Amino acid sequence: MNNTMIRFILGQILRVEAALLLLPCVTSLIYREAQGQMYLFVAALCLVSGLLMTTRKPKNTVFYLKEGCVATALSWIFLSLFGCLPFVLTGEIPSFTDALFETVSGFTTTGTSILPDIEALSHTSLMWRSFTHWIGGMGVLVFLLAIVSLSGGSDMNLMRAESPGPSVEKLVPKIRSSAAILYGIYFAMTILEMILLACGGMPIFESIMLAFGTAGTGGFAIKNDSLASATAYQQWVITIFMILFGVNFNAYYLILFRKFKKAIRMEEVRYYLMIITVSILIVFLHIRNIYGSIGISLRHAAFQVASIITTTGFVTTDFDAWHENAKAVLLLLMFIGACAGSTGGGIKVSRIVLLFKSLFKELYNYIHPKNVRAIWFDKRPMEKSVVRSTLVYFMTFMLLFFVSVFAITFEGYDFMTSFSSVAATINNIGPGMSLAGPTENFAYFSVFSKYVFMFDMLVGRLELFPMLILLYPGTWKELFPKGRSNPR
Amino acid sequence: MNNTMIRFILGQILRVEAALLLLPCVTSLIYREAQGQMYLFVAALCLVSGLLMTTRKPKNTVFYLKEGCVATALSWIFLSLFGCLPFVLTGEIPSFTDALFETVSGFTTTGTSILPDIEALSHTSLMWRSFTHWIGGMGVLVFLLAIVSLSGGSDMNLMRAESPGPSVEKLVPKIRSSAAILYGIYFAMTILEMILLACGGMPIFESIMLAFGTAGTGGFAIKNDSLASATAYQQWVITIFMILFGVNFNAYYLILFRKFKKAIRMEEVRYYLMIITVSILIVFLHIRNIYGSIGISLRHAAFQVASIITTTGFVTTDFDAWHENAKAVLLLLMFIGACAGSTGGGIKVSRIVLLFKSLFKELYNYIHPKNVRAIWFDKRPMEKSVVRSTLVYFMTFMLLFFVSVFAITFEGYDFMTSFSSVAATINNIGPGMSLAGPTENFAYFSVFSKYVFMFDMLVGRLELFPMLILLYPGTWKELFPKGRSNPR
Repeated sequence: MNNTMIRFILGQILRVEAALLLLPCVTSLIYREAQGQMYLFVAALCLVSGLLMTTRKPKNTVFYLKEGCVATALSWIFLSLFGCLPFVLTGEIPSFTDALFETVSGFTTTGTSILPDIEALSHTSLMWRSFTHWIGGMGVLVFLLAIVSLSGGSDMNLMRAESPGPSVEKLVPKIRSSAAILYGIYFAMTILEMILLACGGMPIFESIMLAFGTAGTGGFAIKNDSLASATAYQQWVITIFMILFGVNFNAYYLILFRKFKKAIRMEEVRYYLMIITVSILIVFLHIRNIYGSIGISLRHAAFQVASIITTTGFVTTDFDAWHENAKAVLLLLMFIGACAGSTGGGIKVSRIVLLFKSLFKELYNYIHPKNVRAIWFDKRPMEKSVVRSTLVYFMTFMLLFFVSVFAITFEGYDFMTSFSSVAATINNIGPGMSLAGPTENFAYFSVFSKYVFMFDMLVGRLELFPMLILLYPGTWKELFPKGRSNPR
Repeated sequence: MNNTMIRFILGQILRVEAALLLLPCVTSLIYREAQGQMYLFVAALCLVSGLLMTTRKPKNTVFYLKEGCVATALSWIFLSLFGCLPFVLTGEIPSFTDALFETVSGFTTTGTSILPDIEALSHTSLMWRSFTHWIGGMGVLVFLLAIVSLSGGSDMNLMRAESPGPSVEKLVPKIRSSAAILYGIYFAMTILEMILLACGGMPIFESIMLAFGTAGTGGFAIKNDSLASATAYQQWVITIFMILFGVNFNAYYLILFRKFKKAIRMEEVRYYLMIITVSILIVFLHIRNIYGSIGISLRHAAFQVASIITTTGFVTTDFDAWHENAKAVLLLLMFIGACAGSTGGGIKVSRIVLLFKSLFKELYNYIHPKNVRAIWFDKRPMEKSVVRSTLVYFMTFMLLFFVSVFAITFEGYDFMTSFSSVAATINNIGPGMSLAGPTENFAYFSVFSKYVFMFDMLVGRLELFPMLILLYPGTWKELFPKGRSNPR
């Protein structure tokens, strides 16, 4: 294991975080809030630590996927550990565990909060909180790759280790330009949403916060009722942008390069839109008589469906009070998640489609055992290894899910709380149901449960394996080999 | 598709059912109950239908796995359709849906009941109800194969299509002797349990019923409180026999042929016993103060754990009132299920072990991408196709499970009810939790939900694919090909 290279990347990440922490500092200047000092202090701390870790450039730049996984997992943990300090130091979230929870929830774009009163937070901290969503949405290492050049295959293997985007590398031959293009699209769409929200009468600060939350499919709002008190126009704008940020970014890339036909034909995006339409319809039928008018019911149905499938987690109404079947739609959507290569979480539409296709292939093979038929996706036959790794992914996901639910049941809360709180965190959504529902927060869970949730948020966000690699004993043997004086 | 052969097998199955129905007829003679007439009438009906369907022996005996699947699925459906008639005709379960539910629950060894008052049933019907467990436990087609010889590969492909026993065919070269040996072991163990129960002061009739229920890992008892009022001795005997019937029958075969070392080394059985021990321990710690004495708590813990992991479904106490974490243990055990090649249901211990092993292999490959390492099981490297089909099985199972839960949520009951009722039926257990819990029954579910449950019971019992093949449109094209005058 190339420890020096991993240290170097972690140092780079801390330097990036130092720069990112300047945004809340600027905010504190505008709103004349004292909290900015603490943010500046932590920024300095990050910078010094980062500089110390990057003084010596690694000589050996050989960098495999395993190093990519370890570096990615540790990057996200470091980011969160340093990123939570301002909350503790300003006293706005005095408990370290809670502050870390909120920061992990931010970076992983989960949006689950332990804050009973969000409106009590300073503008400075609100800015940092929502900004973590925006950074986490596109991926921190993608950001790093967009601004610095690494060598020895590290860029490729970091990109592979960090989601989003299983097919991101195909865009352009050079990883750096690819990362820059992605961030360009992301930035432009965020600005557009911000403008549309502000035009609808929303204060500029709130528009920025909500655009960050939507773009990263995060879900941190700045009001205690999330978006319930927003106007119909604002809710519709956010609904549409949530859906847009849940689309595979390759589609936007194709549109950018004027390959419209290819963009329209993308199978995953079609299924994604189809699932959204059907889900809105089912939910709407269940709630059509609750809100007084068909228009309002449709808006709430569309908003909640878009919010859950894209794993954003904004809410406009307490869906925990809906019919069990409408809630089951939302629970299923939690697991399906958004498109691969989007900012959303969950298992991802493409994987779900692939699972169904391999089920049908299996049945076909029972009837025609001698016909060898490949699984087709986007008019191309899928490689067997892709199908296999999707099956392994699903299996690993479900095992982790059930083990986590088991751990949460120690709390003794009702089953829906345990089940949906894990579903909401491992899929990076935000609110669950029952005691973890949209009108509640996660403050009352035990410290043990909070760490389980943090693990789930990270494991879900990084698509399982980077975090699991970090826990795998074999990795530690490689990191600290016994009796070998010169570890690679 | 060899339709003639399928018809022939279905006819044979009905002839077998006619014979099986004589047991309740004899019971009615002993207890001088009028219900026996109806059983005799249905037996005659089965015999006549069976004879009509088997008059012409099929000339073409070519029989592939697809035919095996279709024949198996249809056999179980036919068995249940005819088997439920006595309940309707005697008026003891007047609703056809309910009678069918009870019969499917019986044959699939689920043990979920729609009867609010079991004790009101005649001895005749109780006998038939429990006897379906015993027949279903070892498999109806295995029974058929034990008594008749089929040709053209049909025996092998029926054996492959019908669970239990993925490795049953390895026992002896001839399928027929293999089936006979299995039924021999099964019969002997049932008799032994019966004697032990009767020696403990249980009435002979009840001993027979409970031995049938244990052997098939079914769970139909003959008292409304299941086994709550049984003595401690009786409860321990049943606990031990439930565990024994959940063991892979290959172990008994090996013991029978004096290969003790090989029997002890069976990896699946070791994991199975390990899971049971750990589960009992966790449950015991949660309930140690509930029942007044450590002995009683341990007994209830052991009984419920054994009952759930073997998918039997007897109960001695209302476990729905336990701590959420103890309930979560039981929920996880529902999915794990018993050993492959046993009479139990669920995903099966060997599959779960294989899933964990492939997860560890995946992590190993991240660290050592160039080392090709096979997954080992029972000191043999597993073929890739077995690992792949296990992954496909798990994926299919989870998809079916979530779709079923979604269907049940239309009822509007709490999530634990929907979740656990499907878990209890698709894994062939019996009682779930909450409104589907041990003190409740399934009578109040809608007709739609009852058919969903019946489908789940059959799909779980036949290990998914035979039932899915029956629903697959491609199968129907083969069964009734257009424009082909001579279907194969």
